[in-house]
Amino acid sequence: MMQMTNQKQQYDRGITIFSPDGRLFQVEYAKEAVKKGATALGIKYEDGVVLAATRSTPELQVRNPEKVFKLDDHIGVATSGLVADGRTLVDEARNEAQKHLMTYDEEIPTSVLATFLADRCQHFTQYGGVRPYGLSTITGGVKDGEPKVYHTDPSGTLNQWNAVAIGKGREDAKEYLEENWGEGLDETEAIDLAVSALKAGEEDIEFENIELSIVDMDEEFKRFSPEELEDSDVEL
Amino acid sequence: MMQMTNQKQQYDRGITIFSPDGRLFQVEYAKEAVKKGATALGIKYEDGVVLAATRSTPELQVRNPEKVFKLDDHIGVATSGLVADGRTLVDEARNEAQKHLMTYDEEIPTSVLATFLADRCQHFTQYGGVRPYGLSTITGGVKDGEPKVYHTDPSGTLNQWNAVAIGKGREDAKEYLEENWGEGLDETEAIDLAVSALKAGEEDIEFENIELSIVDMDEEFKRFSPEELEDSDVEL
Amino acid sequence: MMQMTNQKQQYDRGITIFSPDGRLFQVEYAKEAVKKGATALGIKYEDGVVLAATRSTPELQVRNPEKVFKLDDHIGVATSGLVADGRTLVDEARNEAQKHLMTYDEEIPTSVLATFLADRCQHFTQYGGVRPYGLSTITGGVKDGEPKVYHTDPSGTLNQWNAVAIGKGREDAKEYLEENWGEGLDETEAIDLAVSALKAGEEDIEFENIELSIVDMDEEFKRFSPEELEDSDVEL
Amino acid sequence: MMQMTNQKQQYDRGITIFSPDGRLFQVEYAKEAVKKGATALGIKYEDGVVLAATRSTPELQVRNPEKVFKLDDHIGVATSGLVADGRTLVDEARNEAQKHLMTYDEEIPTSVLATFLADRCQHFTQYGGVRPYGLSTITGGVKDGEPKVYHTDPSGTLNQWNAVAIGKGREDAKEYLEENWGEGLDETEAIDLAVSALKAGEEDIEFENIELSIVDMDEEFKRFSPEELEDSDVEL
Amino acid sequence: MMQMTNQKQQYDRGITIFSPDGRLFQVEYAKEAVKKGATALGIKYEDGVVLAATRSTPELQVRNPEKVFKLDDHIGVATSGLVADGRTLVDEARNEAQKHLMTYDEEIPTSVLATFLADRCQHFTQYGGVRPYGLSTITGGVKDGEPKVYHTDPSGTLNQWNAVAIGKGREDAKEYLEENWGEGLDETEAIDLAVSALKAGEEDIEFENIELSIVDMDEEFKRFSPEELEDSDVEL
Amino acid sequence: MMQMTNQKQQYDRGITIFSPDGRLFQVEYAKEAVKKGATALGIKYEDGVVLAATRSTPELQVRNPEKVFKLDDHIGVATSGLVADGRTLVDEARNEAQKHLMTYDEEIPTSVLATFLADRCQHFTQYGGVRPYGLSTITGGVKDGEPKVYHTDPSGTLNQWNAVAIGKGREDAKEYLEENWGEGLDETEAIDLAVSALKAGEEDIEFENIELSIVDMDEEFKRFSPEELEDSDVEL
Amino acid sequence: MMQMTNQKQQYDRGITIFSPDGRLFQVEYAKEAVKKGATALGIKYEDGVVLAATRSTPELQVRNPEKVFKLDDHIGVATSGLVADGRTLVDEARNEAQKHLMTYDEEIPTSVLATFLADRCQHFTQYGGVRPYGLSTITGGVKDGEPKVYHTDPSGTLNQWNAVAIGKGREDAKEYLEENWGEGLDETEAIDLAVSALKAGEEDIEFENIELSIVDMDEEFKRFSPEELEDSDVEL
Repeated sequence: MMQMTNQKQQYDRGITIFSPDGRLFQVEYAKEAVKKGATALGIKYEDGVVLAATRSTPELQVRNPEKVFKLDDHIGVATSGLVADGRTLVDEARNEAQKHLMTYDEEIPTSVLATFLADRCQHFTQYGGVRPYGLSTITGGVKDGEPKVYHTDPSGTLNQWNAVAIGKGREDAKEYLEENWGEGLDETEAIDLAVSALKAGEEDIEFENIELSIVDMDEEFKRFSPEELEDSDVEL
Repeated sequence: MMQMTNQKQQYDRGITIFSPDGRLFQVEYAKEAVKKGATALGIKYEDGVVLAATRSTPELQVRNPEKVFKLDDHIGVATSGLVADGRTLVDEARNEAQKHLMTYDEEIPTSVLATFLADRCQHFTQYGGVRPYGLSTITGGVKDGEPKVYHTDPSGTLNQWNAVAIGKGREDAKEYLEENWGEGLDETEAIDLAVSALKAGEEDIEFENIELSIVDMDEEFKRFSPEELEDSDVEL
Repeated sequence: MMQMTNQKQQYDRGITIFSPDGRLFQVEYAKEAVKKGATALGIKYEDGVVLAATRSTPELQVRNPEKVFKLDDHIGVATSGLVADGRTLVDEARNEAQKHLMTYDEEIPTSVLATFLADRCQHFTQYGGVRPYGLSTITGGVKDGEPKVYHTDPSGTLNQWNAVAIGKGREDAKEYLEENWGEGLDETEAIDLAVSALKAGEEDIEFENIELSIVDMDEEFKRFSPEELEDSDVEL
Repeated sequence: MMQMTNQKQQYDRGITIFSPDGRLFQVEYAKEAVKKGATALGIKYEDGVVLAATRSTPELQVRNPEKVFKLDDHIGVATSGLVADGRTLVDEARNEAQKHLMTYDEEIPTSVLATFLADRCQHFTQYGGVRPYGLSTITGGVKDGEPKVYHTDPSGTLNQWNAVAIGKGREDAKEYLEENWGEGLDETEAIDLAVSALKAGEEDIEFENIELSIVDMDEEFKRFSPEELEDSDVEL
Repeated sequence: MMQMTNQKQQYDRGITIFSPDGRLFQVEYAKEAVKKGATALGIKYEDGVVLAATRSTPELQVRNPEKVFKLDDHIGVATSGLVADGRTLVDEARNEAQKHLMTYDEEIPTSVLATFLADRCQHFTQYGGVRPYGLSTITGGVKDGEPKVYHTDPSGTLNQWNAVAIGKGREDAKEYLEENWGEGLDETEAIDLAVSALKAGEEDIEFENIELSIVDMDEEFKRFSPEELEDSDVEL
Repeated sequence: MMQMTNQKQQYDRGITIFSPDGRLFQVEYAKEAVKKGATALGIKYEDGVVLAATRSTPELQVRNPEKVFKLDDHIGVATSGLVADGRTLVDEARNEAQKHLMTYDEEIPTSVLATFLADRCQHFTQYGGVRPYGLSTITGGVKDGEPKVYHTDPSGTLNQWNAVAIGKGREDAKEYLEENWGEGLDETEAIDLAVSALKAGEEDIEFENIELSIVDMDEEFKRFSPEELEDSDVEL
Repeated sequence: MMQMTNQKQQYDRGITIFSPDGRLFQVEYAKEAVKKGATALGIKYEDGVVLAATRSTPELQVRNPEKVFKLDDHIGVATSGLVADGRTLVDEARNEAQKHLMTYDEEIPTSVLATFLADRCQHFTQYGGVRPYGLSTITGGVKDGEPKVYHTDPSGTLNQWNAVAIGKGREDAKEYLEENWGEGLDETEAIDLAVSALKAGEEDIEFENIELSIVDMDEEFKRFSPEELEDSDVEL
């Protein structure tokens, strides 16, 4: 035990380097930051994607996007981990989306933007003088009629999912998604699934603790307020 | 206990890196610097925002803005933490405001300026060779008839509030604000609330220990001297 | 034992430097990361090359290339180790292939691309401020009628093989290849050999756990889906 | 006690970083250098400012400005701390004053120059690869008929004073100033106050141990020699 | 003993620096890497030079140059140590040879190329942020009818030899060369000497474990396959 | 005592930083290097300045300027400390003198050149990646009929003197100068004083152990050989 | 004793910094490297200079200049210490000589070239990220009929000599030179003196262990082979 502690002590100082068994401790510690973050998820459905996350809403705080962001008309991203890292990386992604539009006169594909996010994260694990991003992201978008959902973690690993969850409630939320997701969900079913999966991941959440947005076949990012969620048929 | 001390010792030296449980110690220590700072607050009211902070006024010292600064005609900022960091970051923000004006021929929106402050703080937590800012800020402004109040901390986290307090008296001041803030406050009520909340946060303060400014619907930053506060209906 | 531990402690911190017995620990630790990666292999046959790798396919995850990538029409690469490092290095290799095409008006030879990958890896073992790539690669291509298979490791060592395996099942897979590979294999035999060798390296794999691609005499990269593998005569 | 020593040892090495309780040790140690410096002070009076400092005058040394410098016709600065740091920073300030004059065709305001000094000091506490300035400054000037006195410390904190003292005799000197300074002092009274306050701060000083200069309503920097002080009505 | 260990510990971390007795440990450790490398040698004979090295040839690996490389038509190099370092440095040398040709319209002299290799190695021992090359080289070439053989080590030391050996079998191989080399060897005798010296250095080597090339009076680099060696009169 | 040793150990490694009591150890250690240097001095007299220093003259060594250098026709410098640092800094000063002449078409004033030397020294105490100069200098010159003598130390402190001594014999030499220097010395008396003061500082010196130069009212640097000193009326 | 060891341990790591008693350990350790080097010397005689050094000549090694180099037609240098450092620095000096010739259309004076060598060495003792040169040099040249001999050490100290020796036999060699050197030596006597002094410094040397060159009044660098030495009247 003592030995283990000592061994670790040597490999987690300074820049990101390998431990004798081939691990990158700084990256693993950054993942810990994400495991403490609010639960977030992304779900692909027949005609679009749902992005959602839980949030606390302290008294007197004004409710602004904090975990689920619009990146472009047709793409959004849900984040979990260090909030400030999220805002910064999202801003870089927005610039990337605009640059792509200007350069190619075409909206950025969802996969290209997700790869951009993953590459930025990987870069911060290999070069000295910086720390890894303490952030996981779920990117969801619709382009050319194709809804797609991607996930990145602090190491820069990138995967595409039908439905995926991150943050402190990820295990229960993923289990719920695995049991209940299926091809051919419509928008209402997908939103309902998102809300229920968040509920499965974190107990005691109310509509006001949920940020939820969709991108639909019109390739339009649409944000749902707690009130809109409450007025819909979604049950909590 | 000893173990805990030892464990911490390894993660808080040199540049900002993650600890095994995903924390950034340098950022947490910078927050400690803010917790020792003078109490400051920002309050949104019907027709504007109030920014206020406590200050000591040693004998023979000339009273100049030290905690509450004018950034532009329509925006101010209250700071808590390292005084020199505050002045420096405020100067950067003033330049940013002027650059925005020159580039877009439009006054900078309050949210854009607050994001600038938050981004600067985040940047100093991710790159090596610098230390985080030992500073929290409350930005208040009125643009297009919309009063808005934002808060940033040393990690670069950014939130919008109806009323918020920072510094050593933040807990009692926030509690007071939560109990007494409501929609539709007028200027006098808001100033009264600000003074009372500061008083709740720090005992034994006199009017001369208070810096207070407002931005009103005319989008004009106005500073209140201790004498003006004393002459108003505000009670201490 | 204790002494050994102490001795190692001094040479594996910070940048890649030599230990007293002439070893580079950071490179050796990076190789450990590869030893934990999914098994991957490359096989040369009469009319082309097969590249294959095992992968997990969690429920709800969308199946995308993750271990076996197309670099150019006539070249592919299979990777094992840190997934994010793989994606990043593969992207650099794709750029290199395009640059070669543009500069020389000729498709990049397989050996040139494999050397590029090896040089990148070596570079990251000699200069400070970075860590080595936690990645081994198997590059396979057909150019001017010549199928070729190359292997690189984190030190940047480069070798050409008739058949080679990397990752956690490498030992059993290599043994299987040594026993069963021979000159003159046709495409079906080579694919069959690849699947069997992966099976030898990792137990309990199904067709859905296999990524497999070939480059044939038409210098075309062709990916096989699990279904196509299942429908072929290949036995698992 | 031992624990305290150990704790400090970790946070004051290398570049300026935060300790767990939010302090910047390198800055605090730089302040120690100032506390050992010769006593210096600045006093605002009706028609100008007085800047003064004690100095030793070893036998055979030629008496040159060492603690009180002319920055421009209308501004001077008194320093305490590392003498070489003082000369260097003063030179930078002189350049800044000339640049201002050239750029705006107007003499630099006292407050702008004092802010320049404070910003330089703050900068050296936040960026790596340098040490903080071991220096406090008192800037005094008259511009547009307004006499002003500012103080900066190694952290870059800036304050305006009617009268202020720094260096090893600062406590007694400040106390003397608080008891004896008042609005409406004339030049003679102010010089008398300066000399008496220095005397209060450090015992056994003679006129030859005093550097003293004034800036008056003509916006002219005037240096008093020990002989001129002795010939005046000032008593020691 | 313990003391010795401790003393060394201080001088072999980080960049290459002197120990109290004037040694450069990182360079000495790099030499250890070479001592573990495969045996290689260079021999000057009447009409040319022989370069040779032992190598392992694992089953299924394709036999490519790994220790003996062609640098230009008239120059080759044999290496021992880190294989990836060898390939990288050889590539730099090839570029240098081409640059020389382009600049002076003349093939690079053997001595100039060997000096280039030595200078590169020396450079990596004096500047920080890099490690020394874990590599020794033997450069052999014929220019203007002059066969020449040079040796470099990780420190950048350069010497010219009639016959020299490096790597794990260097001691026995050198002894064999000293006993058997003489002026006036013809090509066959030189090749025979090379093979025998390698055999003296490492037991149990077969023709397939030998890379051997010559540069002859036609200034042409010629590689011998194991089969060609076997078919020659050379005895093993 | 032990404690003291430990405390110091922490503040004198790496770059120049403050100790808890506000000292810069690297600068203090550099001053130690000067205290071990040969005694040097500068003396102002009625019509010029004398610069002198002791030196050893090993058998067979050719006597060249080693401690007293000509900087320009009208300025010289005597140094004590690391000899190589002295030569390097003197070269920089010569360049500065030439640059001044070219830029302003006027010979550089003695004070400007002395400030240049002091600024260079200060710079090397505040920025990382370098060590302080292990050198003190005495600059003497005559410009516009004004003889002047300045002293700098490794911290960059600059002072003007009528007569000053540095190096290992500085204490006795200074005492001698204080007792014997006076206004109105002529050249012969000044040279005599210089030789006697050096003799007071270091016993057993002969004329051949003395470097001595003067700058007179003709603004000409003139070097005295040991023979010239011996032939003069100076007594040893 | 233990204490001494500990004290040293702190000042000789990392870059070149001062120890508490004002020493630069890295420079002193570099001097140790030189003390282990082969004996080398330089002697001025009536019509030129002799440069000589001992060397080992292992069997089969081709005899090339290794310790005594031609820098230009009229200048040579003898080195002792790290052989690779010597070759590198000598190359820089050759470039400097060519640059001087091209810039001023005049051959570089011996003193200028020796200063160049010393400045390079000093530079590597003051700036971080490099180690000092482990090298001493003796530069000898004839320009405008003036034979001159200079010596540099790793600190960058530069001195001119009539005759000087470095390396492991320096003490006995210098003593021999002091006893036997005199003004007016002719070439043969000077060569004889050089050989005898080397012999005094290192026992058991033969003509084949000596590199010896002269620069004569024709300003021509001439190398003597062991055979030429043997054929001359020089006695060993």
